[in-house]
Amino acid sequence: MEFSLIDRISGFTYQRRDDVLLGIGDDAALLQVPAGQSLVVAVDTMVEGVHFLPGTAPADLGWKALAVNLSDLAAMGAMPAWALLALTLPTGDAAFVDGFAAGFAALARPHRLALVGGDTTGGPLAFSVTVHGFVPPDQALTRDGAREGDLVMVTGSVGEGAGGLACLRKYGVQVQDEGDIGQLVARVRRPRPQLGAGLALRGQATACIDISDGLLADLGHICRRSGVGAELDADRLPLSDALQSVFGAEQACRFGLSGGDDYELCFTVPESRAHAVQGDLARIGCSATPIGRIVRGEGVGVRDAGGQWLDIESAGWDHFAA
Amino acid sequence: MEFSLIDRISGFTYQRRDDVLLGIGDDAALLQVPAGQSLVVAVDTMVEGVHFLPGTAPADLGWKALAVNLSDLAAMGAMPAWALLALTLPTGDAAFVDGFAAGFAALARPHRLALVGGDTTGGPLAFSVTVHGFVPPDQALTRDGAREGDLVMVTGSVGEGAGGLACLRKYGVQVQDEGDIGQLVARVRRPRPQLGAGLALRGQATACIDISDGLLADLGHICRRSGVGAELDADRLPLSDALQSVFGAEQACRFGLSGGDDYELCFTVPESRAHAVQGDLARIGCSATPIGRIVRGEGVGVRDAGGQWLDIESAGWDHFAA
Repeated sequence: MEFSLIDRISGFTYQRRDDVLLGIGDDAALLQVPAGQSLVVAVDTMVEGVHFLPGTAPADLGWKALAVNLSDLAAMGAMPAWALLALTLPTGDAAFVDGFAAGFAALARPHRLALVGGDTTGGPLAFSVTVHGFVPPDQALTRDGAREGDLVMVTGSVGEGAGGLACLRKYGVQVQDEGDIGQLVARVRRPRPQLGAGLALRGQATACIDISDGLLADLGHICRRSGVGAELDADRLPLSDALQSVFGAEQACRFGLSGGDDYELCFTVPESRAHAVQGDLARIGCSATPIGRIVRGEGVGVRDAGGQWLDIESAGWDHFAA
Repeated sequence: MEFSLIDRISGFTYQRRDDVLLGIGDDAALLQVPAGQSLVVAVDTMVEGVHFLPGTAPADLGWKALAVNLSDLAAMGAMPAWALLALTLPTGDAAFVDGFAAGFAALARPHRLALVGGDTTGGPLAFSVTVHGFVPPDQALTRDGAREGDLVMVTGSVGEGAGGLACLRKYGVQVQDEGDIGQLVARVRRPRPQLGAGLALRGQATACIDISDGLLADLGHICRRSGVGAELDADRLPLSDALQSVFGAEQACRFGLSGGDDYELCFTVPESRAHAVQGDLARIGCSATPIGRIVRGEGVGVRDAGGQWLDIESAGWDHFAA
C-alpha cells in the first residue's frame, strides 16, 4: 500500500521548496542543503498504547508525530525544512490517513516544512518521523556548554503535559478542549514546538534541551554532558493557573519537575545575558523564567520555598522510577 | 530506555567521519554535507510478521534493516554516509539489541556509514531506518529518464529473494545456509545492496530502480514515471542455477518476474552504451544482463521463448494479485 497512501498524504502536505530537487515518488529524495548551513536531523517514534492512548483522533496524532520532532530541532536552534514519515497501520484506512495527514499538514504548513519521503506498511499502529533542519554550524544549541554560574531558564510553563495526560486517562480521550481541563489536554494533543525560541537563543544560550522526558531528567542530560550540576527553586517553576486549579499546587509542582511531554525549552545562559534573552523571547510572544542556577558538581537538586532540599528520589516522586 | 539502548548500539556501530559534527547524544545530529553534493534520503520500515518471519536472528534483522535502505541509495547512484535507527522492541532485551547492532554494524562498517541518531521504544517488534547519502545533483539516477529504444538491464540474478522466502516458510527460519536452499535463504537474510553498481551507473543509466517489490512492479514504476512501456524476454532473465534446481525453470521465472526482495538494480541504458556499462560493472564484479527494451506506450509485457506474450495477470501469477 506504500504508493497510494504516501501519495494521499503528500497531496495534503505538499509544500513547494526550491531545495527539494526530487520529493516523493522515486527511490529516495534528492535535497540541497543551503551553503553555510549544517544539517540537523532527528527521529522519533510513537507507538499506540505507549506514546498515545488508543482512540486518539488521527489529526491529533499527525500533528503530534511532527511536533515532537520539531521540538528536537527547536532545541538545536534549527530552522525546519524537510520530513520523512514512516507510518504503520493495521488496515489501509483512508479516513485515518486523511485525518493524520491533515493534522500533520496543519503544523507543517506554517513552518514551510515539506514531506519529502515516506513509507507506509501494515502492522500495529505506530509512526516514526525523521525531520531535517538547518543551522549555521557555529550557532547550533547543544547540551554540553552549561557553565558554573549560568542561570537555568525554561520557556512557557511546565507540567501541563503530564497534567493533560492524567486528565485523558481519567476522563477519556474524547474529553472536550474546554476550560482548565481542556487547556491541559490540548497541550497533550497538539503540543507547540518552541521553534521561534530556539532561533532566538542561537548564540545566546550556552546549552539547550527540549522537555520531553521531564524537566529534571532533561536538565540532568545537560548537566551530564556539560560536567556540571544544577540547583532549582521549586517555587520559581512556571506553573499555569489551569494546572494548579485542577491538581493543586503540590501536584502541579511535581508534574512540572518530573512530568514529560511539555515540549518547552530548558536552557542555560550567563546571568549577564538573561535579561536581554528574556526581552528577545518576549518580542516573539514567548515567556522565559529563571528557575535556578548551574553549579559545580553533578546532578540536579531542588529547594522548596523554605530553602529545604526536596527528596526528589523518594517514593512520592514515582515518575522517577521509570 | 532510549538512552542506554542507543548507547549500546552506537558502541557497536561507531564510525568516525569528519562530516559528523555531533552524533548520538544531543537532541539531534549535526551534519555537514560536502560542497557540490546533494543529499539523498530514504526511509524504510520493517514489521515482524509483515516483512520478516518471527524467530529471525537479530543479527540478520540488523543487517537487513540497513540493507533495504542502502539499496534505495544504490538505486539513486548515491554514496552512503549516515543513518538513524528507530527501534521498537517488546522488551529491553540486551541480547537482542547486541545481535541487531552487530548485524547492522557488519554492513555499515565496510561502507563507512555512521549511525548518527536513533530512538528506541517499547512496542511490537519493528524498526525504521533513515539513510543519507551524497550524489552530485546532475548525476543522480532517477526513475523518469527511460527513452524508447533503451535496453532494460538487471544486475546479478532475480527471483532468489522470493525463492528464499518460500524456503524459510517451508523449512523454518532456523534452516542452515548450506547448499542451494542455503544460497536462497542467505539472500533473504543478508541481501547485498548494489551500491558499487549504482556508483558505476552515474551518468550512464537513463533510469534506475532497486527491485524490492518484484521486477515487473518496479520496472512498471520506471515506465510510469518515464511515460514509456517495456517489453521483456522471459528467457533472458538471469536466474541462478540454485533457484532453478530447487523450484524448476517455470517457477524460477515467475519468482524472477514477480517476486520481491531481490535488491538488484533494474536500469535502462541507450543500446550504444550497454556494452561499456557491462564492462564497467564487470570490473567491480557485478554482472548485468539485458532482458528487454523500452518501447512507446505504457505497461510491461513479457514474451516467452517462442515469442508468445505471457498473460502475466492471469490467476497463475498470484504474486500480482497483491
